[in-house]
Amino acid sequence: MASLDDVVAALERLYPPALAESWDAVGLVCGDPDADVGRVLFAVDPVVTVVDEALAWGAGLVLTHHPLFLRPVHGVPATTPKGRLVHRLITGGCGLYVAHTNADRAAPGVNDALAAALGLERTQPLVPADAADPAVGLGRVGALATPEPLAEFVKRVVRGLPPTAAGVRAMGDPDTVVGTVAVCGGAGDSLLDTVKAAGVDAYVTADLRHHPSSEAGESGGPALVDVAHWASEWPWLADAAARLAAELSSRGSTVETRVSSTPTDPWTMHESS
Amino acid sequence: MASLDDVVAALERLYPPALAESWDAVGLVCGDPDADVGRVLFAVDPVVTVVDEALAWGAGLVLTHHPLFLRPVHGVPATTPKGRLVHRLITGGCGLYVAHTNADRAAPGVNDALAAALGLERTQPLVPADAADPAVGLGRVGALATPEPLAEFVKRVVRGLPPTAAGVRAMGDPDTVVGTVAVCGGAGDSLLDTVKAAGVDAYVTADLRHHPSSEAGESGGPALVDVAHWASEWPWLADAAARLAAELSSRGSTVETRVSSTPTDPWTMHESS
Amino acid sequence: MASLDDVVAALERLYPPALAESWDAVGLVCGDPDADVGRVLFAVDPVVTVVDEALAWGAGLVLTHHPLFLRPVHGVPATTPKGRLVHRLITGGCGLYVAHTNADRAAPGVNDALAAALGLERTQPLVPADAADPAVGLGRVGALATPEPLAEFVKRVVRGLPPTAAGVRAMGDPDTVVGTVAVCGGAGDSLLDTVKAAGVDAYVTADLRHHPSSEAGESGGPALVDVAHWASEWPWLADAAARLAAELSSRGSTVETRVSSTPTDPWTMHESS
Amino acid sequence: MASLDDVVAALERLYPPALAESWDAVGLVCGDPDADVGRVLFAVDPVVTVVDEALAWGAGLVLTHHPLFLRPVHGVPATTPKGRLVHRLITGGCGLYVAHTNADRAAPGVNDALAAALGLERTQPLVPADAADPAVGLGRVGALATPEPLAEFVKRVVRGLPPTAAGVRAMGDPDTVVGTVAVCGGAGDSLLDTVKAAGVDAYVTADLRHHPSSEAGESGGPALVDVAHWASEWPWLADAAARLAAELSSRGSTVETRVSSTPTDPWTMHESS
Amino acid sequence: MASLDDVVAALERLYPPALAESWDAVGLVCGDPDADVGRVLFAVDPVVTVVDEALAWGAGLVLTHHPLFLRPVHGVPATTPKGRLVHRLITGGCGLYVAHTNADRAAPGVNDALAAALGLERTQPLVPADAADPAVGLGRVGALATPEPLAEFVKRVVRGLPPTAAGVRAMGDPDTVVGTVAVCGGAGDSLLDTVKAAGVDAYVTADLRHHPSSEAGESGGPALVDVAHWASEWPWLADAAARLAAELSSRGSTVETRVSSTPTDPWTMHESS
Amino acid sequence: MASLDDVVAALERLYPPALAESWDAVGLVCGDPDADVGRVLFAVDPVVTVVDEALAWGAGLVLTHHPLFLRPVHGVPATTPKGRLVHRLITGGCGLYVAHTNADRAAPGVNDALAAALGLERTQPLVPADAADPAVGLGRVGALATPEPLAEFVKRVVRGLPPTAAGVRAMGDPDTVVGTVAVCGGAGDSLLDTVKAAGVDAYVTADLRHHPSSEAGESGGPALVDVAHWASEWPWLADAAARLAAELSSRGSTVETRVSSTPTDPWTMHESS
Repeated sequence: MASLDDVVAALERLYPPALAESWDAVGLVCGDPDADVGRVLFAVDPVVTVVDEALAWGAGLVLTHHPLFLRPVHGVPATTPKGRLVHRLITGGCGLYVAHTNADRAAPGVNDALAAALGLERTQPLVPADAADPAVGLGRVGALATPEPLAEFVKRVVRGLPPTAAGVRAMGDPDTVVGTVAVCGGAGDSLLDTVKAAGVDAYVTADLRHHPSSEAGESGGPALVDVAHWASEWPWLADAAARLAAELSSRGSTVETRVSSTPTDPWTMHESS
Repeated sequence: MASLDDVVAALERLYPPALAESWDAVGLVCGDPDADVGRVLFAVDPVVTVVDEALAWGAGLVLTHHPLFLRPVHGVPATTPKGRLVHRLITGGCGLYVAHTNADRAAPGVNDALAAALGLERTQPLVPADAADPAVGLGRVGALATPEPLAEFVKRVVRGLPPTAAGVRAMGDPDTVVGTVAVCGGAGDSLLDTVKAAGVDAYVTADLRHHPSSEAGESGGPALVDVAHWASEWPWLADAAARLAAELSSRGSTVETRVSSTPTDPWTMHESS
Repeated sequence: MASLDDVVAALERLYPPALAESWDAVGLVCGDPDADVGRVLFAVDPVVTVVDEALAWGAGLVLTHHPLFLRPVHGVPATTPKGRLVHRLITGGCGLYVAHTNADRAAPGVNDALAAALGLERTQPLVPADAADPAVGLGRVGALATPEPLAEFVKRVVRGLPPTAAGVRAMGDPDTVVGTVAVCGGAGDSLLDTVKAAGVDAYVTADLRHHPSSEAGESGGPALVDVAHWASEWPWLADAAARLAAELSSRGSTVETRVSSTPTDPWTMHESS
Repeated sequence: MASLDDVVAALERLYPPALAESWDAVGLVCGDPDADVGRVLFAVDPVVTVVDEALAWGAGLVLTHHPLFLRPVHGVPATTPKGRLVHRLITGGCGLYVAHTNADRAAPGVNDALAAALGLERTQPLVPADAADPAVGLGRVGALATPEPLAEFVKRVVRGLPPTAAGVRAMGDPDTVVGTVAVCGGAGDSLLDTVKAAGVDAYVTADLRHHPSSEAGESGGPALVDVAHWASEWPWLADAAARLAAELSSRGSTVETRVSSTPTDPWTMHESS
Repeated sequence: MASLDDVVAALERLYPPALAESWDAVGLVCGDPDADVGRVLFAVDPVVTVVDEALAWGAGLVLTHHPLFLRPVHGVPATTPKGRLVHRLITGGCGLYVAHTNADRAAPGVNDALAAALGLERTQPLVPADAADPAVGLGRVGALATPEPLAEFVKRVVRGLPPTAAGVRAMGDPDTVVGTVAVCGGAGDSLLDTVKAAGVDAYVTADLRHHPSSEAGESGGPALVDVAHWASEWPWLADAAARLAAELSSRGSTVETRVSSTPTDPWTMHESS
Repeated sequence: MASLDDVVAALERLYPPALAESWDAVGLVCGDPDADVGRVLFAVDPVVTVVDEALAWGAGLVLTHHPLFLRPVHGVPATTPKGRLVHRLITGGCGLYVAHTNADRAAPGVNDALAAALGLERTQPLVPADAADPAVGLGRVGALATPEPLAEFVKRVVRGLPPTAAGVRAMGDPDTVVGTVAVCGGAGDSLLDTVKAAGVDAYVTADLRHHPSSEAGESGGPALVDVAHWASEWPWLADAAARLAAELSSRGSTVETRVSSTPTDPWTMHESS
C-alpha cells in the first residue's frame, strides 16, 4: 500500500515529465493524492474496457501511455465518453496517470522495450535528448546479433510483438539483408528523414501512411516495417510495472501491478486480398 | 425531482449557449445526465465555500456565473484546488453548470437584473446581439424615473446592491444630473467607448482600472460608478432561480432552488484614507 | 493525336481545377502545350516505375492523381529523385498532369469510382461542395442493395478493389449489419466526425491511424474499413481514361489511353501475427 | 537653468530607457532639446489639470510616470484631447518626458519609494532584471521591523500613502500576521503567481480585479492589499525630483522642481455599503 | 478666412478618408480646429523646404500628399527631424493635413490629374473601388486621341510633367504603337499584373525596380514608362487647390491657395552613361 | 571538360550556399550532375536572351546572379515563360545555377567587384556576416585614394560601370566632398540606416525609391548615387568567371567561360526633361 502521492513521485522519477514534448499532456488526470493505492493497472489506452478491468480488479490507479485529454477541456461532464470515464474513475476511487512522450524518451522506456522485443543489441537513441545522459532520447537504433534477410526479419517482428488482427506489413526487397535497425514505438513518420540519415537497413514503427512511405522508398530509404501502434508500445507495460514495483519497494511500499489483458488495438478484423 | 439532463435542457432554453462569447466556457462542467436533481444552488463563483454549502444542503446541481475552467485543462487531479472541487462534487453526486456571457446577453439575464436593482426603466441592450430579438445583447441602457444628482445616484446604487466591504466608488461631479444610465455586470471596461457613444449620464460596472477610467474622464465620458464585481452579478441569481423553477414546473418537474448565502467578493476589509 | 494544350483543356473540363483544395497543387507539372500527344498513361503516383512505363510505351502525357511537388520547389535539378523524373519526362517528350482533390470532388470522380467498385447505390457527396451541382463534393454516401453483416461487407471490399499485399483491416462487430456506407478515397481521417454525423453503418477509407480510429470507436462511430491508399483510388483511373478519350473524340481528336500496370502501393510484404 | 537636452540626459542616467518593457513608450514626448529649462514639474499622469499647473507655474518640463501615447499615433491634431495637450505644451514652451516601466525597475525607483512609504526593510526586487545590479527589477520584497496583524498592516498602508476617496481594501484574515511583504506600484496582477512563489505574507498593489484576486485566495496565496493606482506611484515623485536636482547640481546646473499638487486618481467619490 | 475645422470638412468632402487604404495615415497631423486659416499651401512632401515656404508665406495650413507619420509615433520631440517640423508648425500657427491614398482613389483626384497631363481621354479606374461611383478607384486607364510610337509617347510624358533631374526612362520597342495607356501616380509596381490583364499598350508610373520590371517584360507585358515619383503626383496639386477654393467659396469662405514652388524630388543630379 | 557535379562543387567552394539569406533560392535549378560541361556562361538575369546565347554557344551551364524561381513553384510547364526556359535548357543539355545573396556576401564577391570598379580602397563589409572571416558580409565600405566633389564622383561611377540607357542619378550637394563610400550591389534601400550610422560620404546602390531616399536626405544621411541594378552587379561576372576557371584548373579540369554580351537592364530608353 502506498499513497497516490508516493506512487506519482515514483513514476516521475522513472519517467521525468520534463522529457515530454511541449505539446504533450502527461501526469495525473484524476485521483486524490492522499488516497491509498494497493493495485496499479498498466495499459496503452484509457478506454472503456481498460476502466472496466481496473474497477473490477479494485485498482487504485491506472497508468496509460496515451493521454485521455491531449486536447484540453473546459469540463468533464458525463455527457461525453471521456467525461464518463472520469466520473467512473473518481467515484470508483481510482486515479489515472499518463506517461507518454516522457516514457518514449526515458531510458529504459518504451523504445528500449520495443528494441529488446526485436532482439536488438547495442542500442542508442535515434534522436538524443539529454547531453548528460546519452541513453535518453526518441527512438532507438541497434543491431541484430546476426544479419538476416528482410523476409526473415519481418517474421522476427511478428514473433516479438503481441498478435494483432492485421499483422505486420513491410516495404522493401524480401532478400535485402537487415543488420541495423531503427525503432520508434507509436506513429513514427516524422522521423523518416532522421532514420534515412542514420543509414540503417530497416525501420520498425506504426501508423505509416502512403505518402511519406512512398517518398521514403523513392528516395532510397531503408526497408519499412509497419506494425500495430498498440503492439509497438505494449512491450513497455510489463517493464514499467516491474520498475514501479521495485522503485516503491526500495522505499518500503508494496503495490500489486498488472498489465491489462485487454488489447486496445482498434483493428479487430483482417481479410487478405 | 428532475433528471440533470432535463435541468440542463431548461437552463439552455433560458440561457442559450450560442449567446456566449467565442472565448467563453459555458455549460456542464461535471455531473451525470441521468442523475436525479432535487435541489439547485445558485452562486456567482465556483469556490470552496459554495461547494461546502451545496454538499451540506444536498444539492444535485450548482449553477455558477463564472466558469471553473475558463482556461482549459488536461486533467482534474485533486492535487489542484479546482481539481479537488471536481472530485468533491462528483463523489458528492452534485453537478456544476456555468452560464456566463450567455446569461449576460440573454433577456432577461444578468444585466436586466442589475438594471432593475437600480430602478432603471425602458431598458435596451447597450450592444444588441440578435437582430431577431432586440432585447438580447451586452449591457443595458435605461433611464431613471426622475433624474437626480450623481451624489444621490451613488447612494441608490449602494441601496440596490448587496453590501460589500469596499463599498462603491465614483468619478464625476457630485452635482451633475444623472438621468440616463448604462450598466454592465462584471468587468465592463471594454465597453467604455460604446458607453460614451451612447451619450448616457452615468455608467455602472465593476473592475474598472486607472488607465481606462482616467482616459474616459479626460475625453469627456460619462460619470463612472465602480461596484464590486460580485455585487453587480448577484441580483441575477434570484431571478435565474425563479425562472428555472418555473421552466421545469411548466414541464411537470419540481426542483428546490436556493441562492447561495455566501458572498464571494474577495475583498473583505476596507479602510478609509 | 491531339496537342497537349487540347488534352489539358479536356481534362480541366472533366476535373475543374477550381474544385481543388486551396493547399493542393494540381495541373500541368511539365510538358509543352504545342506538343502532339498520341498516348496518355493513367497512374496513381508519379514514381520511377510509372515514368519507366510511360517512356517505354511512348506516352506523350502521364496523368497522376498525386502531385509530384505538393511542397513547392525552387528548381528541378536532377540531383533529386523528383527533379530526375522531370528531366527524364522533358527529354523524353512526355508531359505530367495532376488531378488530385479536384478529381476527388468532381462528379463523376475518384469517389464515384470507389463507391461503384463497392456496389453502392443512390450515392451523394458526404461534404457537398457546389450549391449548383449537388453531385459534386468530398466523399460519397450510399447504400447497399441488400444490407449484409460487416464480415461479409469486408469481403465485398476485398473483391471490389485491386489486390494488395496487406489486404483490408476493419474495426467493429463482425455481425453488425451494414446497409449505408460512406467512402473517401485516400486518407480520410479528417472526415471521421462528418461520417459519424451522417449516421452510416460503415466508413471505407485509407491511412487511418490509431488515435482517430480508437476515438471514433469509443464515441460510438460507425464500423471502419481501412484499405490501401493506392487501391482506394485505382478504380478511378479506368473511368478517367474512358472519359478523356470520349471528351477528345467528341471534338474530333483520338488519343490512346492506358491504365498503368504497375501497382504503386508501397507495402509489398505482409505477415499475419 | 539647464538645456532640455541636459535634463533629459540626467533623467536617462537615473532611469535608463533600456530598463523599460518592450511594449512601453518612454522618453521625450515633446519639447525642443535646445530650450532652457528652469522649472520641472513631477506628476503621475499627463492630464489637463497637470498641464494647467505646469503652464501656470512656468515649467519648462513636465515629467510624468504614465505615457501620453502608449498606443502610437499618426498625428497630434488639437481635435483630440491628447493632441490639444501637445499643442498647449509646445506653444507654452514646455516639454513632456515619460519615465514609466524604466522607473519601475530602476533602483532607486518607483517601487523603492513605495516600499519605503510602508516601512519595509531589507528590500530586494521581486523580479530581478539585471544580473550586474541585484537591486534593479520589478516590484520589491521586504520585511517589517516588527510583524503585525493584517488589520494593523492595512492601517499602516493607509498612513503611508496619500489619501484617496476610495481608501484601501484588503483580502485575508484580519488576524493573520504580516511580516514579509511584496509591493508593486501600479497594476500588479500579472505578478500574483510570482508573489505566491515568493512566500510573502501580504502583497500591496493596485487595480486588482475579481478573477485573479479570487483565484489567488482559493489557491492559498498571500493577503492582498489593493490601493489607488495613483497613490501607489505618488511617493516616487518627490524622490525623483530630489534626485534630478542633485544630478544636475553635480554638473553645475540648477533647476527648480515641484511635485504636482493635483491628485490624478480618477475616483473622487466613495460610499460605504 | 475660414476656420481650420471648415477647411478640413471641405477637404474630406473632396477626398473622403474612407477611400484610403487600411494601412494609410490620412487626415490632420497637427493644427487647432478653431484657428483661422487664410492661406493654404499645397505640396507633395512634408519636408523642411516646404515648411520653410509655408511659414514664410504665412500659411495657416499645409496640405501634402505624403504622410508625415506613416509609421505611428509615441511622441513628436524636436530631437527628430519630423518632430522638429511639428514644433515649427505648431508654434508658427500652421496646420498639416494629409490626403494620400484617398486622393489617389478619389475622382477627380491624383490619377485624373496625371491622366490629363498626358492627354488621355475616356479614362476610367484601373481598379474600381466603389460600386456606386464607377469613376472612383486606383490608377486610370485611357486612350490617346491619336496612337503614336512609344518613342513619341515618352516625349509626350516628358512634356506633360514638371522637369526633373533624372528625366524619364522606358522599357519597350521604340516603334511599338501606343494607343491605350494605364497610369498610377507614385509607386505602381503592385499593379503590374492588373495592368497586364487590362491589355494596355503602355503603363506610366514611378519607383519601378529591376525585378518586377524585368518579369513584366519577359511575360509579355506592356511598355513601361518610369517617371519621378514627385513629378507623377505634382499635377494634382493645382487641381486640388482650385477645388478647395471653390468648395469653400460655395459655402461663403475665401482662402488663398498656392502650389509649393519647391520640387521635392530627392534626385537633383543626373549623368548619362 | 568537367562534370556538372564538379562545376557545382567548385562554385559552392567559391560562393558557399550557407552565406545566402534564409529567404533566398540559390543552387542548381536544372541540370544533370553527370553531364559533361565544357562551356559556362555568366549573366545577371535568367531571361530569354541569355538562354538564347547559352544554347547558341553550346554552353553546358549558365550561372546567373538572380534566381529563376525565387517564389517556389509546383511545376515547370512550358505554358509559363519560366517553365519554357527550363524546357529549353533541359532539352538543350544546359544546366542553370544561381549564386545570389551568397555571392553578395562572399569575399571576393559581388560587392568587392563593385567597389573595385569605383576605385575604392581598404574595403570591408558594411554588415559583417562571419566572425571567423572579417572580409565576408553584405555591402562594402571603402575610401577613395583622393577625395573629390560629389559631381566628380558621379562621373567616376559612370565611367566604372557598363553604360545603361538611363544613366546615373544622385542626391546631394554637387560640391560636397566624397572621401568614404559605401556600396551595395542591387537593391540597397534596406541598408540606408546602416549606411548612415557608418558615417560615409556617399552610398552607391540601385533601385532606390522616393520615400526612403527622401527620408534619408531629411535626416542628414550621405549623398546617394542610384545606378541601374544590372550595372551594379555586372562587374562581378568577369571576376566569377576567372575564379571558376582557376578553381577547376587547380583540380585538373578545364572549362571555357564567357560573360554574356547581352545587357539585361530592362530600361532601354531615356529622355531628359
